[in-house]
Amino acid sequence: MSEVPRLVVIGTGLIGGSVAAAARAAGFADRVVGVDADPAALAEGLEAGLLDETGLPEDLGPDDLVVLAVPTLAVPGALAGLVDDAGVLAGGAVVTDTASVKGSVVAALRSLPSTARARFVPGHPIAGSERSGVGAARADLFRDHRVLLTPEPDTAPEALGRVEALWRAAGAEVLRMDVAEHDRILAMTSHLPHLLAFALVDTLGAQREHEEIFRHAAGGFRDFTRIASSDPVMWRDVFAANGPAVLSILDRFVADLGRLRAQLEAGDRAALHETFTRAKALRDAHVGSGTRRG
Amino acid sequence: MSEVPRLVVIGTGLIGGSVAAAARAAGFADRVVGVDADPAALAEGLEAGLLDETGLPEDLGPDDLVVLAVPTLAVPGALAGLVDDAGVLAGGAVVTDTASVKGSVVAALRSLPSTARARFVPGHPIAGSERSGVGAARADLFRDHRVLLTPEPDTAPEALGRVEALWRAAGAEVLRMDVAEHDRILAMTSHLPHLLAFALVDTLGAQREHEEIFRHAAGGFRDFTRIASSDPVMWRDVFAANGPAVLSILDRFVADLGRLRAQLEAGDRAALHETFTRAKALRDAHVGSGTRRG
Repeated sequence: MSEVPRLVVIGTGLIGGSVAAAARAAGFADRVVGVDADPAALAEGLEAGLLDETGLPEDLGPDDLVVLAVPTLAVPGALAGLVDDAGVLAGGAVVTDTASVKGSVVAALRSLPSTARARFVPGHPIAGSERSGVGAARADLFRDHRVLLTPEPDTAPEALGRVEALWRAAGAEVLRMDVAEHDRILAMTSHLPHLLAFALVDTLGAQREHEEIFRHAAGGFRDFTRIASSDPVMWRDVFAANGPAVLSILDRFVADLGRLRAQLEAGDRAALHETFTRAKALRDAHVGSGTRRG
Repeated sequence: MSEVPRLVVIGTGLIGGSVAAAARAAGFADRVVGVDADPAALAEGLEAGLLDETGLPEDLGPDDLVVLAVPTLAVPGALAGLVDDAGVLAGGAVVTDTASVKGSVVAALRSLPSTARARFVPGHPIAGSERSGVGAARADLFRDHRVLLTPEPDTAPEALGRVEALWRAAGAEVLRMDVAEHDRILAMTSHLPHLLAFALVDTLGAQREHEEIFRHAAGGFRDFTRIASSDPVMWRDVFAANGPAVLSILDRFVADLGRLRAQLEAGDRAALHETFTRAKALRDAHVGSGTRRG
């Protein structure tokens, strides 16, 4: 038996398409509906069998579930567009989002009527790919990954439960987190690494001999810069929405890098060795050793 | 028929052990000999069948091949130790090395007698792993990877040919390169990314809440920081030996990062989008899109 009559995915890119695919694979909804400004994405989603129909249904009701899988800065507008004149959100359906930054989404939510607020669950699946678009969608994108939800005090427990059920059906582990803590931690583990990867590729690309440089890039460089192949619009929005938290950790990183620079310039082998040993021990202990060749 | 009577590998860690394994798999040498300060590494190499015997042979001759697979800063001492009172290097054998920086090796080489110089071929296999030690050795570590050789004007063509034959037997593509260009390019594609990965893990590890932070690290972070699990001694040596080239590209990177920081602080979405778009296009075009999930 399905959990909901209709799952509506607004924004059928990599994440939205994968939500549709995962829900379909788990039999989570009777019907999976896609909404996207790009007709080609919808056609591809229909063709791939991820969607049953397209276009926002006018008769959404309290049992349905809507997922806003649009770039971070597009969430407030999409959310506002779902509220009717009576202050009801999406016909009373439960609504969630997938944006990588939650502070800006929650701020927009707080301007909505309380009836609408109760039905919205801010969410963030910690999964992705450097590939983008519905063509890269996969039913197992979220399997064994985490989904962080940052519910507000007035989020209805039933709404929260329905969104948790969606992600569990997709194979994810669901955790609840404070919204500011979410944005601070993600700035460190995700946003800053993306900024550094984009910046490094851009710096090397500006070198006169950049073709020769990239030709000699090996596996280590490929893995290090993989996230620099991510969707530029998604990441522009992340940095615009989470600026202060990113700046904070960026400044600490640049200060630490300045110390390493001084050790490098001084040829301080002992200090370099100490830093590398500490970093290796931290990564081996907390992140686990990858096994790909470099 | 084997190419050489004896292949002597000095330093039986990841790289040296993999050279032994690859040579053995290709039938490149009649005997594979291991030399290492650590008896346990030699015992492991014998046990794994990578080595036929251990200890530097006293009767090396012009047909043998010696590979110095020790950390970068240990190469000059190991090289000098192979020169006898008559100025002959390793009994006249051909000698090569695997250090990641070539300028410091070539500088040491230039202080040797010309008879010794002619028999040494500076080399660098662009392959590795964040794992280290002979237990991580693999016969296919160099397959489809590049090996960069930086011969000097007085390197004997026959010596160069024998070293090229070793690496081709291991499945690698062999290229010759100017020594300064090698160190400049590797500073950009390998040394700087390693420095950034070590630095990022160390910065996050210094945060009070670092256990919570690392707990939320996803695939993107794992790939980005994989190289921070590399051998600290190897990398201390690389940075000590290639300081100026690393400082040069580090300073350009930090300047570019400063510009991104200003755009972030100003909320300049157009400028961020432009940089990310350019970086993504560069990486997609020159490095190729990885396919692992994030």
